[in-house]
This record gives sequence, C-alpha cells and structure tokens, in this order.
Amino acid sequence: MPVPIVPHVGLLTDLYELTMSAAYWQAGKSGEVATFELSVRSIPAQRSFLLAAGLEQAIEYLQALRFNGDEIDFLRKHPSFESVPAGFFEYLAGLRFSGTAWAVPEGSLVFSEEPLLRITAPIVEAQIAETYLMAMMAYQTSVATKAARVVEAAGGRGVVEFGTRRAHGPVAGFLAARASYVGGCLGTSNTLAGFELGIPIYGTTAHSWTMSFEDEAESFRSFAELYGSQAVLLVDTYDSIEGVKKALRLGLPFRGVRLDSGNFLDLSRQVRKLLDDAGRTEALILASGDLNEYVIRTLAEESAPIDIFGVGTDLVTSRDAPALSGIYKIVEIERNGVVRHTAKFSESKVSYPGKKQVFRYCDAEGNYSQDVIGVASEVYPQAEPLLEPVIKEGILVRPLPTLVEIRDRSTASLARLPEAYRRLENSDAYPVKKSAALEALLESVRSRYAPLPAGAGEAAKSR
Amino acid sequence: MPVPIVPHVGLLTDLYELTMSAAYWQAGKSGEVATFELSVRSIPAQRSFLLAAGLEQAIEYLQALRFNGDEIDFLRKHPSFESVPAGFFEYLAGLRFSGTAWAVPEGSLVFSEEPLLRITAPIVEAQIAETYLMAMMAYQTSVATKAARVVEAAGGRGVVEFGTRRAHGPVAGFLAARASYVGGCLGTSNTLAGFELGIPIYGTTAHSWTMSFEDEAESFRSFAELYGSQAVLLVDTYDSIEGVKKALRLGLPFRGVRLDSGNFLDLSRQVRKLLDDAGRTEALILASGDLNEYVIRTLAEESAPIDIFGVGTDLVTSRDAPALSGIYKIVEIERNGVVRHTAKFSESKVSYPGKKQVFRYCDAEGNYSQDVIGVASEVYPQAEPLLEPVIKEGILVRPLPTLVEIRDRSTASLARLPEAYRRLENSDAYPVKKSAALEALLESVRSRYAPLPAGAGEAAKSR
Repeated sequence: MPVPIVPHVGLLTDLYELTMSAAYWQAGKSGEVATFELSVRSIPAQRSFLLAAGLEQAIEYLQALRFNGDEIDFLRKHPSFESVPAGFFEYLAGLRFSGTAWAVPEGSLVFSEEPLLRITAPIVEAQIAETYLMAMMAYQTSVATKAARVVEAAGGRGVVEFGTRRAHGPVAGFLAARASYVGGCLGTSNTLAGFELGIPIYGTTAHSWTMSFEDEAESFRSFAELYGSQAVLLVDTYDSIEGVKKALRLGLPFRGVRLDSGNFLDLSRQVRKLLDDAGRTEALILASGDLNEYVIRTLAEESAPIDIFGVGTDLVTSRDAPALSGIYKIVEIERNGVVRHTAKFSESKVSYPGKKQVFRYCDAEGNYSQDVIGVASEVYPQAEPLLEPVIKEGILVRPLPTLVEIRDRSTASLARLPEAYRRLENSDAYPVKKSAALEALLESVRSRYAPLPAGAGEAAKSR
Repeated sequence: MPVPIVPHVGLLTDLYELTMSAAYWQAGKSGEVATFELSVRSIPAQRSFLLAAGLEQAIEYLQALRFNGDEIDFLRKHPSFESVPAGFFEYLAGLRFSGTAWAVPEGSLVFSEEPLLRITAPIVEAQIAETYLMAMMAYQTSVATKAARVVEAAGGRGVVEFGTRRAHGPVAGFLAARASYVGGCLGTSNTLAGFELGIPIYGTTAHSWTMSFEDEAESFRSFAELYGSQAVLLVDTYDSIEGVKKALRLGLPFRGVRLDSGNFLDLSRQVRKLLDDAGRTEALILASGDLNEYVIRTLAEESAPIDIFGVGTDLVTSRDAPALSGIYKIVEIERNGVVRHTAKFSESKVSYPGKKQVFRYCDAEGNYSQDVIGVASEVYPQAEPLLEPVIKEGILVRPLPTLVEIRDRSTASLARLPEAYRRLENSDAYPVKKSAALEALLESVRSRYAPLPAGAGEAAKSR
C-alpha cells in the first residue's frame, strides 16, 4: 500500500458516514447514484488563490477503500449499529469504489466554490469517502498554496521544505513535503518523501552534531571530511560569525553554511563577505528559522545574500491560515434513471445543485482573466474546462501525471495568473461568476425546498 | 503495526538525521551515549499551559524503528551518501532502539522549557528519532491543550471532536481524536480511533442524508425508524426551526437534533421550547460549526440550551496556535564513561545543559504552586518529580497507562491548576524557575564555549 494509506483505512472516516450508509441501505437507496463535489467554500482572507494538490492520494484511497472481517465485526458489535440488519454488513464487505471521478488536475489554480473533485458513485461509496477525501485534498491544497507564496516571495532563490518536525504528526510532514514540492519548493528534508515519491531531499547539520564535539571546529572538520563539497555546516550554535571563520580556517571544501538564528540580513552580508574574501564565492548561504513569505520578501527586497531558504513551521502548518473551509456536498442523485438536483439552504451556507464545470477564460496574452462556474453540460468554446475525468467505473482513465509534471503545471498556472491576483497582501479578487444556467438551476431547487414559509411544513409533509 | 506507524517508518525522518548518523559512525562516535530532551521553548501567547500527550505513539515509534533492505539500498544509492562507507549501512541494518526514555506522563501539565521526554541512547538512535518524536508529541500536545480549553469553556456540557475532515490529512485526524479525548472530550467522530484505541465514537447525520431524499421529513423518518432513540437529526439543511417541527410531527423516537448554522443562542432556545412543548424534554440539542472555546464560553455564559458541542476545525488544527515551538536538544554526551554537558548559545535560543527533572510544588490544598526545572540528580523532598522512567535498554519499564487513565490524569491535573493560571485569556503566568544548580551548570558550559570574544577563535581551534 502506498504511504500514507494506513491499515484499516476504511474505518478512517466519520462514524456518521457509516451509520448513514447503513440507513441508505436499509432505505433501499444503495442503488442510487449520487454526485458529490469537493470545493472550498471561501478562500481564506490571507490567500488570493488556491493551488490544487492531493488528488493522487485521494485516488489511492478510493482504490484502497474496503472493509475486512475485523473491521466489519467491530462495526457490527458497536452499539451504534445494533439495529442494523446483517445484510448491510454483507454489502459493506463487498464494497469497492466503482464510481466515476472528475477532478481539476493537481497544480491548477482554483478559487472559492470551484469543485476540485466530483465523485459520482453509488451513494454509500461516495458518502464513506467524504472524510478522507476532504482531509487529504484540503491539507495538501493548503500547503501547496502556501509554498507557492513562499516561492514567489523568494524571487528566484531556492526554497526547501524543512518542516516535518513541526507538522501535525509525522505523516502530515510527508504530505507537506509532497504539497510543498507541488507548490514550487526545490525539495524537502523528509527522507520518506524522497524514497516514496522521488522528491529531491536536502539536509545540512543540526546543533546536536556540533554540540556532540567538544570543539566546534572539529565538528566542521569531521563533517566536511566525510561529505566534502556536499557539506552544509550549521554555524550558529555558539556564534554565527565565529562559526564561519572556523569553517574557513579549516581549509576544507564545503558546499555552504546555514544560519538558523539572529538577524539574517546583517548576518548573511557579513558571512557572504567572509566567504568571498576567502575565495569561497561558490559557497552557498542557507537560512532557516521562523521564515515565511513576508520575512523572505523583506530579505529578498533588501538583497540579502541568501541562496536557499529552509522553511518549516509556517509552511507545513499553513500557519496563518491553517484550515480551509472545505466542503463535500451532494449535488444530484439519480434513482432509476431519474436525476434530482440537490442544494442546501442553511444560513450563509448555500450550496449549488448539479454537476458543475469550471470554465476558465484567458486574455489575448494567455493570462487567466475570469472563471465561470457552470453546469457541467454547458459549452463555452472560448474557455478551458478545468475538471477532467480521472476514474471511470472504478478504473483510472489514464496514468496520473508525475510529480514533476504536476510541479510544472503549478509553475505554468501561476505564471498565467496576473500579478494583481497573486500579491501576498491586498490582492484583487480574481473574478469568478456563476453561469446563468447554474443560477437558474439553484432557483428551481430553491422553489421546491426553502426557505419554507411558516406553515408550509404540512405541504412538504404531504408531498 | 499500530496506526499510525506507516511502512518505511525509519525513513520518516529528516535527511540530516541520517547524514549526521553516518558522520557520527565515521567519526567513531556511534558508541557515544547522548541525552536529548524534548520540550516546548515557549508556550504560545494564546495558551497558559500545555497538556502533555502523544507519548504512547512516540514509544510505539521507538519500538518500531528499523531499516530494511530496500530502505538501506535507497540511502546507499542516494548521492547524499556516496562518500559513506559500507560499514555504516551494516550498522544501520542492525539498529534498534536500545536506550532509555524518561517522560512526563500523558495528561500532565507542562510549561515552557520543561522536558516532556528525555532520551538517553547511542547517539545515532537518539538522533534519528528526533523528527518523528517532535512531530508526534508536539501535535498531540497542541490538540490536547486546545481540547482542555474547549472543555473548560463548555462548563460541564459535553464536547465531541468532529474534525478529521479538517485535520492536516486523515492520519492527523486520528491523532487529533486521541489527543482530544486525552484533553477531556467525550469522544470523536473518527471511527478508526474507536476501532484502534477504544475511544467512544459519535455521529449524527449529514446534509447529504437529508438531501438524498426528496422530502426532508421522509429523511428524518427513515433515519429514526432504523436508529430509534439513538438517532440525532441534522435539522438545518433548509430551515432549522421548520426542520425541528417536521421531526416532531413524525412522532418517532429520536435522541436529539443537531444545529449546524445560524445563531446558536436564538436557535437553541427556540428549539428547546419546541422540544419541551412536544414533551421531548429528554431530547438533546447538539451544535456544530466553527465552534471554539471563545464561542462556546459565550454560549455557556448565556445559558444556551445546548447539551453537546461538536468541535472540528479549531480543535484539530489548534487553529489560533497551530504549532508549538518544540525542540529536541542534546544536553549531554558520554564517551568512555566521561560525561560532557552541552548547551546552545544561539541568539535568543539558549538551551540548558544536562539531564533535567521538573519538580512541581503544591500548596496546602494540593494545588500546583510552582515548578522548578532542575538537574535530574537534585532532590526536592517537598516537590513531585514529573519525569518517570518509561523505557530502559529498549524495553518498556511497565505497561503504559490506558487512555482512560490518561484522561483521568488530565482531569485531575487541570483541577489542581489554580484558576488564575488557566483562564482562556489574560491568564497569569504559572511560576517556573530554574534551580541554582541548573543555572550554575549552564554557566560552566558557557564559560567553555560562548559567546567567544572576537579573536578567541584561535584559542578554540587550538584547544
């Protein structure tokens, strides 16, 4: 099984997905085919776009989804299921994802309310998948978006993701490594991401390495003797400038030095001068420690001679916007060939009915100019439809893109987003509108359901 | 393997842990025994205490840590290791955690700079474990702390963790379920946490359930017929008040209703009245949707008739403080029986040397009054030492506490923290001081290392 699929992954879902599934089955609805769409209700105020990521792991989940005997026994014996007939558990034992998935390719830009993923499947399959799909895609999308901002701020200098230790558990660190690479980072410190996904992996040394030696210079010598021109030495354990001087006095090759504390602008200038004066013009300066897009932008604007930024906490937790308002909403349901569109009218949480498509318009230079969220069957010859078929009847339509292809798509997508829409702060809102057909569909559903005028309940009941 | 141990868990670490390990081995240091301590440098401004959690999964990792042939082949062939002698990889193939671990029991309160975990082991074992241990313990500690705040704010009403879909990937959701339970939640929506850890699991219904029926009342009837007095009905899909009226008109048993949007204070009062007027005084009202300790406190203060709060995003992401400044610092190293204490003097990031113990003092009523972070060998007969031995020579000292025992410890610990130190805002800082012996040890190390006065580099080099 690919990482991060864990044992018993079928149970890695909210209980209500399973209790509702039993109730669908009991109500004779397990043959109904439902369409759910996963989107972000509203982009966080600290972001002006989202970079879609996580689809590959979402698909791995759909392909791994099943329930073995132990898992079914657990459910059967749980008080929540005491009234559920045995037939449901037989159904569950045979459950595989047999549906269809359309998705926006990873590395594409998406905006509020635009579906990233659309699942059409027997309702139980689509329902159980909700929890996992949302967590996987929203998190990777958060981190890929943050990475894109950090990389943009770095203005051509390299950014490496260093954050597994600060992620929400080690597995989140693995996912963050992937999403950061999608978002434009050079690579990650996460070794498993290198092993499993082929992402370039990077490392320097830690304070513990230096401190394990009685003499700091001896720690540098020992490391540089083994790794030679690959060695990046952490110089701030006792005093950054003295550390660099010691490293230079050794006369050994090294690739660069890492600064992890202090005033990076001042220190990097002093260190660059020391390195250059010693003829080490090729030696790199890395900086790490509480970096984010704002700090990096300032350093870049001031031309701090830093070659690579190692970014951890802020990146892997998307610290200033640590969650997206992800939703996974049923938009239509088909029973015996009859399609019924569905929408939600909860206060300030309206969801639009029907299978949708995102149509993206470009200007004459090929830059993105506007999106239209429309009904999937609409045709806009001048626009690019974003959602593509990915799985049909449970089978992958075509091989998924490689991570490098996804990363290239990110770079190309970001380049086509006008600067006004991707400023770190005070960005203009990228124009997204809904098509007339979609608005009309919403109103047709609204007229059937809500808000019910007072006293209309009886009418609904008798319908 | 227990969830969340993933395949290739040995590689779920930063690359530099492994490159440093090779360099330790090459430098003849793999026989040196190092002590590392894991702590939080500084409690976030939004918190006044931390509730320790995650030790069990940290220990599972230490017991699972190893490298198989595929993993070692990957490293051997990676350019980072091209200069590393084959002997290191043989060493790595035989590596198991053979060291000692002391830890603060889960469910204990900890404060800035207090070690949660202390590892003493051959330096490579202790070094490789850094990344995983930090991510696991800091995240669970974050969420357990947040849970404790939310539960406190709820003032006796129940809190259930509903956040897997908004966690940083599904596995983070599983960890959040555990940590939330440690922090005092009644349970979780995460089914796997029920299966794997025995945590009580809860669920209601989703909008999709209601929307899959043409008629909302029919959706209620269908669910209540199957689940009877266990059914909790989500009533806000179209209009919360109308929804409750429909549920009541059915005349079927149900356990309660869930509100997921709108003004919870107004709605809960209206709904309570509807339920009571219908003789359903026992029916519960659940509320969910963008809840946190501040919103819940206001609702509780206004006596909103809400029985259970379902809390998701804010809890599982610890949204207002999504990362802790976790550190894992080498504090001493032993070579051939000689112990050398180590400390770091980076700007504003000083770390204290030596094995430490946290001594907690109580007042006459048994309430916590002050902590002293001291040298581990110190004795304070009036104080309770927090760190206990957990693993010796790789073997568990005694069975770990059950989750219920841990949760009971949380409750008891929180009850002993005076109110002034656990207010949601504007809390007083709990007094933590360092012992004279620890300060003296720091100064003795500082005199050896840092800050080196200008020009002192030569002296250091010649030492």
